[in-house]
Amino acid sequence: MSSAVKKTGVKKVVLAYSGGLDTSAIIPWLKETYDDCEIVAFCADVGQGEEELIGLHEKAIASGASECHIVDLKEEFVADYIYPTIATGAIYEGTYLLGTSMARPIIAKAQVEVARKVGADAVCHGCTGKGNDQVRFEGCFAALAPDLKVIAPWREWEMRSREDLLAYLAERDIKTSASATKIYSRDANAWHISHEGGELEDPWNEPSKGVWTLTVAPEDAPNEPEYVSLAIKNGRVTHVNDEALSPYAALMKLNDIAGKHGVGRIDITENRLVGMKSRGCYETPGGTVMFAGLRAIEELVLDKTSRTWREQIAGQMSHLVYDGRWFTPLCKSLIAASESLAESVNGDVVIKLYKGQATPVKKRSPNSLYSESFATFGEDDVYDQKHAEGFIRLYSLASRIRALNSK
Amino acid sequence: MSSAVKKTGVKKVVLAYSGGLDTSAIIPWLKETYDDCEIVAFCADVGQGEEELIGLHEKAIASGASECHIVDLKEEFVADYIYPTIATGAIYEGTYLLGTSMARPIIAKAQVEVARKVGADAVCHGCTGKGNDQVRFEGCFAALAPDLKVIAPWREWEMRSREDLLAYLAERDIKTSASATKIYSRDANAWHISHEGGELEDPWNEPSKGVWTLTVAPEDAPNEPEYVSLAIKNGRVTHVNDEALSPYAALMKLNDIAGKHGVGRIDITENRLVGMKSRGCYETPGGTVMFAGLRAIEELVLDKTSRTWREQIAGQMSHLVYDGRWFTPLCKSLIAASESLAESVNGDVVIKLYKGQATPVKKRSPNSLYSESFATFGEDDVYDQKHAEGFIRLYSLASRIRALNSK
Amino acid sequence: MSSAVKKTGVKKVVLAYSGGLDTSAIIPWLKETYDDCEIVAFCADVGQGEEELIGLHEKAIASGASECHIVDLKEEFVADYIYPTIATGAIYEGTYLLGTSMARPIIAKAQVEVARKVGADAVCHGCTGKGNDQVRFEGCFAALAPDLKVIAPWREWEMRSREDLLAYLAERDIKTSASATKIYSRDANAWHISHEGGELEDPWNEPSKGVWTLTVAPEDAPNEPEYVSLAIKNGRVTHVNDEALSPYAALMKLNDIAGKHGVGRIDITENRLVGMKSRGCYETPGGTVMFAGLRAIEELVLDKTSRTWREQIAGQMSHLVYDGRWFTPLCKSLIAASESLAESVNGDVVIKLYKGQATPVKKRSPNSLYSESFATFGEDDVYDQKHAEGFIRLYSLASRIRALNSK
Amino acid sequence: MSSAVKKTGVKKVVLAYSGGLDTSAIIPWLKETYDDCEIVAFCADVGQGEEELIGLHEKAIASGASECHIVDLKEEFVADYIYPTIATGAIYEGTYLLGTSMARPIIAKAQVEVARKVGADAVCHGCTGKGNDQVRFEGCFAALAPDLKVIAPWREWEMRSREDLLAYLAERDIKTSASATKIYSRDANAWHISHEGGELEDPWNEPSKGVWTLTVAPEDAPNEPEYVSLAIKNGRVTHVNDEALSPYAALMKLNDIAGKHGVGRIDITENRLVGMKSRGCYETPGGTVMFAGLRAIEELVLDKTSRTWREQIAGQMSHLVYDGRWFTPLCKSLIAASESLAESVNGDVVIKLYKGQATPVKKRSPNSLYSESFATFGEDDVYDQKHAEGFIRLYSLASRIRALNSK
Repeated sequence: MSSAVKKTGVKKVVLAYSGGLDTSAIIPWLKETYDDCEIVAFCADVGQGEEELIGLHEKAIASGASECHIVDLKEEFVADYIYPTIATGAIYEGTYLLGTSMARPIIAKAQVEVARKVGADAVCHGCTGKGNDQVRFEGCFAALAPDLKVIAPWREWEMRSREDLLAYLAERDIKTSASATKIYSRDANAWHISHEGGELEDPWNEPSKGVWTLTVAPEDAPNEPEYVSLAIKNGRVTHVNDEALSPYAALMKLNDIAGKHGVGRIDITENRLVGMKSRGCYETPGGTVMFAGLRAIEELVLDKTSRTWREQIAGQMSHLVYDGRWFTPLCKSLIAASESLAESVNGDVVIKLYKGQATPVKKRSPNSLYSESFATFGEDDVYDQKHAEGFIRLYSLASRIRALNSK
Repeated sequence: MSSAVKKTGVKKVVLAYSGGLDTSAIIPWLKETYDDCEIVAFCADVGQGEEELIGLHEKAIASGASECHIVDLKEEFVADYIYPTIATGAIYEGTYLLGTSMARPIIAKAQVEVARKVGADAVCHGCTGKGNDQVRFEGCFAALAPDLKVIAPWREWEMRSREDLLAYLAERDIKTSASATKIYSRDANAWHISHEGGELEDPWNEPSKGVWTLTVAPEDAPNEPEYVSLAIKNGRVTHVNDEALSPYAALMKLNDIAGKHGVGRIDITENRLVGMKSRGCYETPGGTVMFAGLRAIEELVLDKTSRTWREQIAGQMSHLVYDGRWFTPLCKSLIAASESLAESVNGDVVIKLYKGQATPVKKRSPNSLYSESFATFGEDDVYDQKHAEGFIRLYSLASRIRALNSK
Repeated sequence: MSSAVKKTGVKKVVLAYSGGLDTSAIIPWLKETYDDCEIVAFCADVGQGEEELIGLHEKAIASGASECHIVDLKEEFVADYIYPTIATGAIYEGTYLLGTSMARPIIAKAQVEVARKVGADAVCHGCTGKGNDQVRFEGCFAALAPDLKVIAPWREWEMRSREDLLAYLAERDIKTSASATKIYSRDANAWHISHEGGELEDPWNEPSKGVWTLTVAPEDAPNEPEYVSLAIKNGRVTHVNDEALSPYAALMKLNDIAGKHGVGRIDITENRLVGMKSRGCYETPGGTVMFAGLRAIEELVLDKTSRTWREQIAGQMSHLVYDGRWFTPLCKSLIAASESLAESVNGDVVIKLYKGQATPVKKRSPNSLYSESFATFGEDDVYDQKHAEGFIRLYSLASRIRALNSK
Repeated sequence: MSSAVKKTGVKKVVLAYSGGLDTSAIIPWLKETYDDCEIVAFCADVGQGEEELIGLHEKAIASGASECHIVDLKEEFVADYIYPTIATGAIYEGTYLLGTSMARPIIAKAQVEVARKVGADAVCHGCTGKGNDQVRFEGCFAALAPDLKVIAPWREWEMRSREDLLAYLAERDIKTSASATKIYSRDANAWHISHEGGELEDPWNEPSKGVWTLTVAPEDAPNEPEYVSLAIKNGRVTHVNDEALSPYAALMKLNDIAGKHGVGRIDITENRLVGMKSRGCYETPGGTVMFAGLRAIEELVLDKTSRTWREQIAGQMSHLVYDGRWFTPLCKSLIAASESLAESVNGDVVIKLYKGQATPVKKRSPNSLYSESFATFGEDDVYDQKHAEGFIRLYSLASRIRALNSK
């Protein structure tokens, strides 16, 4: 099954390596295909879980890599990728909180940095030819390192299944703990975990219990609600239940609390960037709570036109992030617009977690535009009810003129 | 407390009459203020509940009206106002399902029709001078009947409280069952009920149990989920649990089922059109399920660009409806755009109701763009993985050129 | 230079044929490459000029085609493609009036119809692999006839220049009147002509006089302005200088008048859909006048919110048409929205043509929202200046509250 | 004609004073109406022309003001109000370059500063009750100084015409050079001059020659074109014809050159913020050239998605500036987004001025994404024509799937 003709022109490749079956097979395949090139394994720690990192270095070397770089990006991921995104309010197609999408640019950037450090002339990823991730990775590579060759084995080789990969490794006496059957394809990081495949391939199937890993089923969640408080400054959570926490630590704590209450399950049939639809299930427990908290403070501080604009930024950002266009002038512009608005997103919110729901029930802000005395009945200096007539007359003037003209 | 100087020029007024304390006081006030003009009471039945209509005719006459017209608008409300709105996906400020907003234009239109029938020269409403409804009503009047005088007693008279109104009626020996204290201000129709006032005036207060009337608390909902199926045709629900139902009947049935599971509670601090913020709680049980069903089918049938466009229509429509601009060319244009897209919104969806949540768990459509074979691993004629490289190269070409140029 | 290996599986191809050098070479190339398949030449008459159609049939047969279908699409092009587009106000990147873009879908549709009629199993176009037109044609083919194979010789063959093509034809003793040098690449139809290449490839070069073909230089235009009047109904020109004309005839007349005054020259560096920029010069004399006329009537009839919405439709439509997405639900939705607004785009406009400019100087409409008495000083019933205070107070209420809170 | 009842509660008013008839009458009217309050005249120099400032101080004192503050805002106006606006590309309703609108916030801000300095408790403007300017001024006052009382005499007093004002001044023996007839209402600053009234009140009238003051008629412009070069850095003109100039000086120079060629005349029927339409003529000679220059550089440097976003910012900004919402979080956010994009708007452009037109004919930029070698025929490493097939297949995949499904 190895390619007969050696390809040339690649001396050293940095491979985005996970230790899974695919990237384990890629190492020998690269060497065989690209004229015995040197392979540097690279793994970004974006919070996918320690169990995925244990033994990774050894495994990479055993598979034929010359080096293995594991880079801790957890705090940077939350601070510089997740927060700028969620501050805009971006939710892809109304539902998906962009967990995988946000991780791709930071991984690609770190991979390029390793490539520069080790003097590589190519980068390689294990994404399939049908998904979004290939576009995200390669779009970032094009923006950051247009000179590096990109190798995408799934678009090159003949293998098409786990069986093919296992056979390929067995032929070469490379050990793997991977099993022939794996129901779901998953991707995890600090923000979320995604699930695809198995019975999910038919949207007429309800996801079975075995799909979910980060959250309990709402039915199995505690019968008593739990309240969690967030302090928010410039659109970022600074405290959870009054405890000051780093961005990553706050997210971890919220994942833990919200997961116990079954919060953050998402089931969507989405439009992939490559033109087809796919059905995915996602779990974003802590992120769902963060989102709810930010939106609750916004309710108090954004006026009508600002909020409308924020929604337009959100719509743009949701596609930009999903489509892998992080390293673009458009992204910088969207973030600049959003951060300007976030200057007033300050305050406290209490969120009730119960049986799958995260409901803000208390909110306050030093920048609040809400005032009891304005909204309710009594008189005040700021709002005179008699002004309303004039407002309405001018507000509806075009309608009135149109009606008069059409008589 | 009656005005000393009689105003002239109004002979016959059609009053939007609810039988509540406010509009009961308006009848004598109009007669006293506007030179003993004739009062025609008008009440739109938009599904606010039979108890609000019982005895209404007698009450109106007893309060001094010469006639009382009760007009059944329930089916028209759902078919011609609610469906065109929800087909666009309009949700005000991300949360509010526009229940009160959607009812105002149909009521204003029917009120104008009564005014034309009885030959009135003025219309009157009981909205306060601080809210949205005065703008919505008067905006519709301007578009439909710019020649009719509009009387808004709350902006004219000196009374400011329920006590004032009760005293006013007592002075005139007009009986009322209204009590001096009423914690919440409410507005109900087939789609929803709204609650304002009381402890809700402070967004730092969680709504108390007494606020809610249409839904049980999630904590008190059944411990077993219930599944409800919807059949959808051109963006409208035609069957609930396989039973063919009229638009209004379908909504009533869903209200009933969803209310039992605590579905559809909303708590929002929103930007009023008149420039201030207010905090409201809303219950939209059946509507929440309908919305979830429509969006689920859209997941299957709208491509990426169509869905993005639908979101833009939604954003526009949410403000248009909230702001009372129903009878405008913009509204017609938005609905035309939306109905065109809704031609493919056909299919079936099963929604799980549990402890406050309505989660679509099964969905299928004859117009689905999803195909298992396209999305998953195997080969097919429609999608060749080798095409992805070309796509990515052109897709990221501007990034590549920018990066090359900046070297 | 012919391919050694015959490709199989294609029996009959319908070729979009212009009689130019490229498509003349494509006929023998197709036969040689695709196993002696039958070639049906197809030419859409979209107003590119009679000289391009004379002798076309004979030429096609002489080059090896078995049939040649010339289809008159001139009126349909203007009525069903140009008008729906310009009613939206679509202008690509602020400048380009979409002349080539609008023609592609109607040509593709007619080509598919010929393919169905003659029982072809493939379609072929002569677009290069670097431009937009390949995407437009093939996007339409995908939407209309996903079963037909698409052949794009410029992406398949080895030839890269006019010299290559001439040599290829000479080798086969096929005569051509084409010369080895052709400075500009051009595309013409009833709406416009485009020019690329030559000195235009450097945006630092001013286009030379030799570029332009439909319009005189402003410097050479008459020293006296000319006035042309348009009658407009539902967003379409019905009369030019009081003469009732069909859509195509009106456009031809305006092309003639406007071209004499140097109106409609465009010079733009635009973003191609395929990710690169290109520099093109376009002449759209009559179209520029039509556009000016429609926008002038809109000034009178669209209120502020409707006009803003129309601009959003325009933005969407400009990309949709440029990007070749005519046969999509999005396009139908945009047109539905636009046609709804166009119901009030009725009236008369007089446009002054002078030295390259088309300036509307007189405009009136039965649907006009403008009224001298409203806009100017005196009192009237519709607008009471005292209302302005109330309007301003509520309009600026959020600003006031924000300012008060930040003290 | 003086008010019988003195109003109280105002001690010192800062009046936006122009020396014209209106504001000359306002001074005595304020003193008589507001209990002999002190009047501080304030005049912002925003480039309206020296002749408007000569003798202004004396005139103000003679009319009864206690002080007169003339503040030079010319450079600040261009640098901090005009440039941030035009960088976004904002053009109101496709035509109006916002000349009056942009000046209002800087004037209001300076007026508030004078009020603070002199300890005033009120501000006053001479805008009519039918226009936009009252809303713009008072919106800015609400945002900057919500505690100051705002006096708008035109909405308070009984006078309605120039005759009324002249009579009012004559009664009080206050001299004025104003004449009883003034055909056009005008507003001038460094950026533009506006004209309203007279025959312009009927959009079916072509503006007569007497309307225009800053530009010659195109017919009277030189028969030879003139070329002007601009150097642009971060979206701002730094050099005109190779001469380094301050923002204001550059604009003045361009006004001079462009005015001679009849460039920058605008004739529009626009939607006022207060709900009615009005017809205005504007002259923006230098601004038209600046706009053309900025847009020309953008053609070279903005990719397709960035440019689309810039157009959305432009649309928002055009309404925001027109509607007087400068001092809002929305404005800050729009400017932040725009300035981020403007980082690459660098380069040189040569603009041809001829008979009313300003046409960029040469453009270049260090940030250009255009490359001859990419756009034209030959092979290169960056773009392989074979990639196009893959791009097209994925780009049109949703269309293909839809078509296949609907068979």
